[in-house]
Amino acid sequence: MRVNGESYRTISVAPDGWSVCVIDQTRLPFEFELLQLRTVEQAADAIRRMVVRGAPLIGVTAAYGVALAMRADPGDDSLQAAVDRLAATRPTAVNLRWALARVGELLRGTVKSERVEQAYHEAGRIAEEDVAACEAIGRHGLAVLKALGQARGGGPLRILTHCNAGWLACVDWGTALAPVYAAHEAGMAVEVIVDETRPRNQGAALTAFELAAHGVPYSVVADNAGGHLMQRGLVDACIVGSDRTTAAGDVANKIGTYLKALAASDNAVPFYAALPSSTIDWGIEDGLGGVPIEQRSGREVTHVWGRSEDGKRIEVEVAAPGSTALNPAFDVTPARLVTGIITERGVTPATRAGLAALFPEHRRAYPG
Amino acid sequence: MRVNGESYRTISVAPDGWSVCVIDQTRLPFEFELLQLRTVEQAADAIRRMVVRGAPLIGVTAAYGVALAMRADPGDDSLQAAVDRLAATRPTAVNLRWALARVGELLRGTVKSERVEQAYHEAGRIAEEDVAACEAIGRHGLAVLKALGQARGGGPLRILTHCNAGWLACVDWGTALAPVYAAHEAGMAVEVIVDETRPRNQGAALTAFELAAHGVPYSVVADNAGGHLMQRGLVDACIVGSDRTTAAGDVANKIGTYLKALAASDNAVPFYAALPSSTIDWGIEDGLGGVPIEQRSGREVTHVWGRSEDGKRIEVEVAAPGSTALNPAFDVTPARLVTGIITERGVTPATRAGLAALFPEHRRAYPG
Repeated sequence: MRVNGESYRTISVAPDGWSVCVIDQTRLPFEFELLQLRTVEQAADAIRRMVVRGAPLIGVTAAYGVALAMRADPGDDSLQAAVDRLAATRPTAVNLRWALARVGELLRGTVKSERVEQAYHEAGRIAEEDVAACEAIGRHGLAVLKALGQARGGGPLRILTHCNAGWLACVDWGTALAPVYAAHEAGMAVEVIVDETRPRNQGAALTAFELAAHGVPYSVVADNAGGHLMQRGLVDACIVGSDRTTAAGDVANKIGTYLKALAASDNAVPFYAALPSSTIDWGIEDGLGGVPIEQRSGREVTHVWGRSEDGKRIEVEVAAPGSTALNPAFDVTPARLVTGIITERGVTPATRAGLAALFPEHRRAYPG
Repeated sequence: MRVNGESYRTISVAPDGWSVCVIDQTRLPFEFELLQLRTVEQAADAIRRMVVRGAPLIGVTAAYGVALAMRADPGDDSLQAAVDRLAATRPTAVNLRWALARVGELLRGTVKSERVEQAYHEAGRIAEEDVAACEAIGRHGLAVLKALGQARGGGPLRILTHCNAGWLACVDWGTALAPVYAAHEAGMAVEVIVDETRPRNQGAALTAFELAAHGVPYSVVADNAGGHLMQRGLVDACIVGSDRTTAAGDVANKIGTYLKALAASDNAVPFYAALPSSTIDWGIEDGLGGVPIEQRSGREVTHVWGRSEDGKRIEVEVAAPGSTALNPAFDVTPARLVTGIITERGVTPATRAGLAALFPEHRRAYPG
């Protein structure tokens, strides 16, 4: 996607042919800086500190992290250590584990002398597949938005989204925002209502940054506002991403998603999750019981990063001094609240049968 | 209530016998400063800028505002101008209008020479009545909490609250927090889950400040977290305040309340609104159609006030530069989602019949 007129992806191999270039997302929206990752430790740290975030992007970063480890030492111990280190960075998103399993399996079957090349090759393939999947999600989602637009009649289609599931969360295009970008490019009038997404403000910082850079109209709202807007008929659809989707269609996504799904259901607003199939955990049915929820530092709640009047990036304390805070980073939206899941192969109801029909190669795992 | 070992009310007549002393709530939780209001203009400005906030407290402040106006000029025009000016400060809370109607009516039937004295007297009565009502809410709410505590068995009772409906929102005790304080004083183990309440952070700043000052255990959470906590069985009850309650039991309260009520309903967590009857608008049945919702500046969303590392109170920008923001300040929770309303006369289902039974003097207005 474009930033200041230049095309970017969120991750790529640097011109040196081996180090990995990422956008430092902790500096957005005020500074657009690239960061070079040269070791597996740096890759793991970038994922943990959320320099890169978003389920698809952390999967790709982890794959490149293994490649960096292979470059330092292509041995079996090094491979296992790299996979373990990267897998431990964030517990909820399944793409991380999926990408590591894929690269790990491939490399274990590869002679040491070829592991570096194979690792880079496979990481690159995962990245390209993600771009293609996101593009396809955009195409399938556009059909959904067109149908909603026709039902609405006049005026722009108003789409609420939570957190950032745009191109910054992926390699390009995005998941939840891919249909929005596709609609915008197709000349359809869309307007995005952007949940700020406390505590880390990915909506206000990243989604707003993306949409502004692309010229898509949007308004930021406090996370508290979405229910009210839906009650008043000011939201035509919700589209969110997913960090892990169960085989039965439960959607684990950024904390607060479940509240918006409840409000959508209460007000008959369609609620979609848009995700590449790499985000589906075919080994889990029940999201509430099966998805580990990352608990992050309470300091993300009691303190806020922002830009001061004199242009400095600083942190301010917002809670009463000495307050402790709970900070669960994700929640689970039960499939019953999800109108549909938009994948690279098409749109399906959020059911086990629907997902299995789109991805029959996974059906075997659940003969029931 | 106590701050640093001293007893305070949120509003009182200063030792000079006429100016009005309030706690500057825009400076909390980092500075505890009193502010003296000497003119009706200053009173109106304090309400508008949210130096004082909370439905009961702005009602009392408005009453004292009329007294200040009478001191400057006890004429009919001055009286009307004061009422109009104060009523225009904030549209949603009904206590403001209720207190102004009460004082206005009294003064219109009072000779000019006695208006100043009568105005102070009536404002003082409204304040005392609010203290008594909040104490009674605490008593009735305590019975509710005791019953929930018995049902829960061991461990502290975990109560989620939104925004600040504590003593800082009233004259003393609070509404939603009155049962919590009553339980704490009664030696019952309670723990409060405090929604930070973006965009103005009244939860993290004011509720946390109050609870810390009083020694009640609490944790701050992002507004997004409550649904997840309820899904996991970590919330035993929600108690919120109200800025305007309809005769049918719809509850207009700080933006985001509706989302928590939806989550409570979805997880069978009891959801209570605690309010003095001065907050009930007997002239409205349908909250969605009837309650005007204040729209505040988008800057409250795109910027955040806090304390910098070097102790200064500063504002930081958190949204992508140039972002516009929508900022509705309240939402309406339909009565169907409210388990019960805790008033100074007891607890009732959130129904027209229940409210009318507790307050039969208002029944006449709705013969249907």
